[in-house]
Amino acid sequence: MTQGRLPRSRSDCEALDRADPLAGARAQFALPAGVIYLDGHSLGPATHGALARVEQAARAEWADGLIRSWNTAGWIDLPRSVGAKLARLIGVAAEDVIVADSVSVNLFKLAAAALPLAKSRTVIVEASEFPTDQYVADGLARISGAEMMRVEADQGLAALERTGGVLIRSIVNYRTSDILDVAAAERVARASGGVIVWDLSHATGVLDLKLAMDGTRLATGCTYKFLNGGPGAPAFVYAAGELAARLQSPISGWFGHADPFAFDAGYAPREGVSRFAAGTPGVLSLSALDAALDAFDGFALSDVAAKARSLGDLVIARAEAMGLEAISPKDAGRRGGHVSVRHAQGYAVVQALIARGIIPDFRAPDAMRFGLAPLYIRYVDVWDAMDQLADMLETRAWDTPAFHARAAVT
Amino acid sequence: MTQGRLPRSRSDCEALDRADPLAGARAQFALPAGVIYLDGHSLGPATHGALARVEQAARAEWADGLIRSWNTAGWIDLPRSVGAKLARLIGVAAEDVIVADSVSVNLFKLAAAALPLAKSRTVIVEASEFPTDQYVADGLARISGAEMMRVEADQGLAALERTGGVLIRSIVNYRTSDILDVAAAERVARASGGVIVWDLSHATGVLDLKLAMDGTRLATGCTYKFLNGGPGAPAFVYAAGELAARLQSPISGWFGHADPFAFDAGYAPREGVSRFAAGTPGVLSLSALDAALDAFDGFALSDVAAKARSLGDLVIARAEAMGLEAISPKDAGRRGGHVSVRHAQGYAVVQALIARGIIPDFRAPDAMRFGLAPLYIRYVDVWDAMDQLADMLETRAWDTPAFHARAAVT
Repeated sequence: MTQGRLPRSRSDCEALDRADPLAGARAQFALPAGVIYLDGHSLGPATHGALARVEQAARAEWADGLIRSWNTAGWIDLPRSVGAKLARLIGVAAEDVIVADSVSVNLFKLAAAALPLAKSRTVIVEASEFPTDQYVADGLARISGAEMMRVEADQGLAALERTGGVLIRSIVNYRTSDILDVAAAERVARASGGVIVWDLSHATGVLDLKLAMDGTRLATGCTYKFLNGGPGAPAFVYAAGELAARLQSPISGWFGHADPFAFDAGYAPREGVSRFAAGTPGVLSLSALDAALDAFDGFALSDVAAKARSLGDLVIARAEAMGLEAISPKDAGRRGGHVSVRHAQGYAVVQALIARGIIPDFRAPDAMRFGLAPLYIRYVDVWDAMDQLADMLETRAWDTPAFHARAAVT
Repeated sequence: MTQGRLPRSRSDCEALDRADPLAGARAQFALPAGVIYLDGHSLGPATHGALARVEQAARAEWADGLIRSWNTAGWIDLPRSVGAKLARLIGVAAEDVIVADSVSVNLFKLAAAALPLAKSRTVIVEASEFPTDQYVADGLARISGAEMMRVEADQGLAALERTGGVLIRSIVNYRTSDILDVAAAERVARASGGVIVWDLSHATGVLDLKLAMDGTRLATGCTYKFLNGGPGAPAFVYAAGELAARLQSPISGWFGHADPFAFDAGYAPREGVSRFAAGTPGVLSLSALDAALDAFDGFALSDVAAKARSLGDLVIARAEAMGLEAISPKDAGRRGGHVSVRHAQGYAVVQALIARGIIPDFRAPDAMRFGLAPLYIRYVDVWDAMDQLADMLETRAWDTPAFHARAAVT
């Protein structure tokens, strides 16, 4: 769909869905009946392939294969083979990605490894950054003796330019969906003598990332959002090949060793990015992720990103027609795969939508987030969800005590 | 079985199995036909309950429940609820254990947190220690500026006494199965002003651990060995309650925050040991572990430990009758749940045993390891396995080129 050609009716949406080059992707997903799932930016849904693969990993590989499956089922290679599959989705070489640990742990490892490369021992993070990124920067500064620098929103690059330190930065902001220009940021980093550790959590699987071309050197990201890897699926690590060989992970576990089963007392890091593996990989979760990534096979990331922009434009247009203000950029080129819309009683509104089978989420104080995963969200889904939202606002259906109660997880 | 009353025939073994207070446990395990599995110290087998639970977590909770399952299926509490279940097996209070990350990552977090408590900033590890423990100590010393001290086997306590540093130590040695006296070691630690971070990987689920009574303060361990949590299942962290409140994890991820979903920019650690959680927990693996731990319900750890000692005595007696030398202590009270036996061609012998459906493992240069998990290994299993070993040594059935080839995983 061309930017700006907005559907004006449900039948416009049906026509767009028929013409959608991604239309074939949705059948891969095991979506529950009666639900429009607009929370794929928090937890992606299961594919039929991932569900079957989990059972195979549990029954055929673990229960029947037992210890032999490290070889016979390829468990030992999963961190690299799944990483290689994921590499296409971020635009880097297959051998420069592994899957390991969580984003929190990987941010720590990468930022620690970046410190000796940077001109100054300063860890920079923006106050608008996803909280775990800020906490990790704090913890790293404390243990390493580096200086911690927390700056205002969008001031990270300026701080990097001044200091030549290590900036931890999301490409897509978790709350607003704002995108940073990666190539421009990397030019600033190089000119300053500093290093950026990218958090790709809200970007991977919904943007047409070309990290190698953009000069990105270090990145990690989450696999359970737009990559649909399953709840708490392990994260990934990217380190540019020529750089990786010069890096030391602070957590030198046996899976990052050149020959883990030699049980040498001395540590020799594995080649390239594999040195950022630490402990034994979680095979069940890795297997689910491995199968989940197949959902992207045969589809162009450029089509994925274009559809995300169009779906986002539709959310914003309909929300504005209801008198709501978009927090996310109206310029689709500056926006990730979710759209946040402001409502003072957003928490209650979201609860009421969920009760009707429409599942977005909410981030305090006032952001209703609509996740627009192009592989399984249709234009009609967005249209219908917005119809429900309009009806709800008109009837104040959200304004009951039940929908105001604060849940543990929002 | 009383120590020393060794079965002298297969029918003696059958009698012992009939009288075994743990006899009812074996039916919980989904063991493949035709296999005697003596590798539970490396990867425990699946229980029927764990297999069913994985499928429930994948299909009912992930695919159908989607994001709602963080609340409705209790995902958010799994690190603590599974930790509480595990606490009984190491003899500590339910609220002092969480499940998170890998042993490698947890050793790093705990040893880093212990440094400010210790009299000297020295990280001590023995050269006979499991390699990842040595690597982690190296990495921590490098990033924190602490002194790294690698000492000879069994010299860790003496070094702790001299320095008052932080000692990373396994209770059960992965190769020899030697046990360290925990209570005595903790007395040395306290007198020295130092701290021990225990690695319980080869101890949990097979020893009658009473860590709180023994004065243990910090520990981590693996859950996929004698706890049968599944391949690469997440590890656990123990921190004594009164101490935990004074500790800082170097990797301050959002799941270790007091209110993870408040998305505060400032870090406030969660109460107690929960501050050692970092990233989003791997729900599929955690769910398998949760169900797997139920296999211990209704069985006394004292019976588990006693049977492991008796099975080990039987392995050693039969191995010695074949002219083989035990690497593990002959005194069962000084031994964990596996027994290592020396053979110059041990790798080929183990491969030949596996080809006959008997699965021990091998650690270079010459250790054949037999894991004796009391919940599913019977006396007759050990008897039959030793019969096969005796036959093989007599006929030199192991001495073929196929069995000498070095596998990627040994």
